[in-house]
Amino acid sequence: MSGRQLWRGGHLVTLAQAQGWGLVPDGALLTEGGQIRWVGPLADLPQDLRVGLDAEVDLQGALVTPGLIDPHTHLVYGGERSAEFEMRLQGASYEDIARAGGGIRSTVAATRAADEASLRASALARARALMDEGLTTLEVKSGYGLSLDDEARCLRVARSLSELGITVRTTYLGAHALPPEFDGRPDDYVDAVCAWMPTLKDAGLIDAVDAFCERIAFSPQQTRRVFETARRLGLPVKLHAEQLSDQGGAALAADFQALSCDHLEYLSDGGIQAMAAAGTVAVLLPGAFYFLRETKLPPVEALRRAGVPIALATDHNPGSSPGLSLLLMMNMACTFFRMTPEEALRGLTVHSARALGLPDRGQLVAGQRADFCVWDAAHPRELAYYFGRNPRRATVLQGRAHEPAPARPVV
Amino acid sequence: MSGRQLWRGGHLVTLAQAQGWGLVPDGALLTEGGQIRWVGPLADLPQDLRVGLDAEVDLQGALVTPGLIDPHTHLVYGGERSAEFEMRLQGASYEDIARAGGGIRSTVAATRAADEASLRASALARARALMDEGLTTLEVKSGYGLSLDDEARCLRVARSLSELGITVRTTYLGAHALPPEFDGRPDDYVDAVCAWMPTLKDAGLIDAVDAFCERIAFSPQQTRRVFETARRLGLPVKLHAEQLSDQGGAALAADFQALSCDHLEYLSDGGIQAMAAAGTVAVLLPGAFYFLRETKLPPVEALRRAGVPIALATDHNPGSSPGLSLLLMMNMACTFFRMTPEEALRGLTVHSARALGLPDRGQLVAGQRADFCVWDAAHPRELAYYFGRNPRRATVLQGRAHEPAPARPVV
Ligand SMILES: [Zn+2]
Ligand SMILES: [Zn+2]
Repeated sequence: MSGRQLWRGGHLVTLAQAQGWGLVPDGALLTEGGQIRWVGPLADLPQDLRVGLDAEVDLQGALVTPGLIDPHTHLVYGGERSAEFEMRLQGASYEDIARAGGGIRSTVAATRAADEASLRASALARARALMDEGLTTLEVKSGYGLSLDDEARCLRVARSLSELGITVRTTYLGAHALPPEFDGRPDDYVDAVCAWMPTLKDAGLIDAVDAFCERIAFSPQQTRRVFETARRLGLPVKLHAEQLSDQGGAALAADFQALSCDHLEYLSDGGIQAMAAAGTVAVLLPGAFYFLRETKLPPVEALRRAGVPIALATDHNPGSSPGLSLLLMMNMACTFFRMTPEEALRGLTVHSARALGLPDRGQLVAGQRADFCVWDAAHPRELAYYFGRNPRRATVLQGRAHEPAPARPVV
Repeated sequence: MSGRQLWRGGHLVTLAQAQGWGLVPDGALLTEGGQIRWVGPLADLPQDLRVGLDAEVDLQGALVTPGLIDPHTHLVYGGERSAEFEMRLQGASYEDIARAGGGIRSTVAATRAADEASLRASALARARALMDEGLTTLEVKSGYGLSLDDEARCLRVARSLSELGITVRTTYLGAHALPPEFDGRPDDYVDAVCAWMPTLKDAGLIDAVDAFCERIAFSPQQTRRVFETARRLGLPVKLHAEQLSDQGGAALAADFQALSCDHLEYLSDGGIQAMAAAGTVAVLLPGAFYFLRETKLPPVEALRRAGVPIALATDHNPGSSPGLSLLLMMNMACTFFRMTPEEALRGLTVHSARALGLPDRGQLVAGQRADFCVWDAAHPRELAYYFGRNPRRATVLQGRAHEPAPARPVV
């Protein structure tokens, strides 16, 4: 929390309305108690709010946007999969890689073998990389532990990332993959996933429940059982849906008023209508689309027409999206998916907030959380236009300028 | 220059042979007078080289690679083109954009209107962004001035970037586009490009000469005239070749023993053979391939078979590749072009050095320039595997640890 502070001289990108950037040149933000109390042109700031300031900052014309929100990551895991990446480029088949112990099971084994301190160290480094480009809220899924203890350990590590000053939301993705000890018994594993849920919830480790509904993962029927358990426990759901085929997962998730359906390359018109009716957000994942060299595009135009909010995320994970740049996701959403720069920024702010069930952030408006980013840019479209370039000047978390992580040690 | 210094405890990636990473665990580098004097396992360091050290640095197991070399950029220009990017994503046609004053001519106009100080400021910021990921040598092309004075100004600005401690090579690309004052008179413009060359050379502004040989730019015949002028002046040539169609540009360039041919999506077998025979490097540009959503892949496997060295570059420019990440180019070369991580690293070190005619760098071997990077990575393949993540710890330029640019000011 913080005292009353005036941030003036900013080029504000408020996203206050449903359409348009909501630009305020020479704008001011008044923050107090971690929230935005007032936003507008400095000239309009009411006299009574100009008094009693604890601090005043001149933003010198810099661009100010809501803080960036990554609503879909698998940030906590042991090991990495660069050897597998290299093998594949050297011509190895997926079978060769499986024989060499690669694939998601290698990450499960490495995660199970890692202690909490080492999982924390690697996850902290990844979260700091995201923060370097303006992350203020982060979702993290479990799903590489696949046992009660291992899932709990990963969720605890995820929770602990909030020590960085960001908000962390944790999602229980027990139904991510079948662990080896359940080979041939997927329904038994789904029973276990459901059975662990109350324990994890009681430990305060679950904000939402997710599943991977796909031919290579869990069936719609199995997904439904996970969601029914979540509903009984009062937990909101999300779904990895229609990434590689149309399983009808989006419609199923919408039946459960899912916060979001994610991936969605093979989403049908019926799925779109169900999502629109349920108020479910579409979370698109350009990093995985890129890294897997997908060619089937998610139905962006149909989602627009149906009024489904589109969010973006890194989907950071060691197998299909080892990326850690939210700004690159904006550029890739424009380049691959033909989203506009404004849609891309909404996708990482107001729409990603909604994908996490967090209505208190994602815009620069009075009453919202005072999480925002200050950029060296003349116009917000520049954030989507460049790639591999970081114009962040500062991040403000709950009204406090966040000191960046110490510079990498120089030899 | 620097005194005698020992860098020990590094995991060296020497690239010393034609194949393989050339890894040296617990390796040492001895640098003196800006050069590498000795490289190898610390245990093998001769006794006589251990004495008289001016300094000793423990690299603590960090990975050490040759410094990264970007052999193809258009880094000096006025303005940026994010408005055009946004218009296109909002559905504007190329004609709409041309009518709105967009396209390369808008960059020419903005460059001509910019004074040397503002061109310098923006180019310095771009060069610093590249240095943040380990750049030690940079090529910069002219080609947005398109008059003698404006080309000279841009080349002077490019030269001045060496104040950052990096090596800068400047390439005269007068034959980049037709300036408006030569509309309908391309041959007259080529005459002018040739006529300006001796003046620019005498001013010490040209290391190499380049041209854009394409249906939408200059013909092979016009390119030949530019190259003949370069040959008379003793200047090496390079070529933007076969990006959008097969113009036979690579074979033409090989006739002139070109240092490199760049882009090459439509390169023919005949072009490959000519390049192989001439020792010409293929410079691939994954950033432009990505940003333009090309689908025609450069013939990587045929280049490999013919033994043509493959280099990589950012091709940074405001129209077709507004990217500033060399590490992302490595990942994109692997992802899009199916190059191996080792090929990708060679592409930004030993092969990019060759594309610039600089045999004194690109490997960690005795006698080479002491330009190297220190990374927080266990294996060099990680540099290609991740994307949007910067594990650089330090850069050493001519044997001296380079202090990074001051951190972005925090509010
Ligand atoms: Zn995912
Ligand atoms: Zn170029």
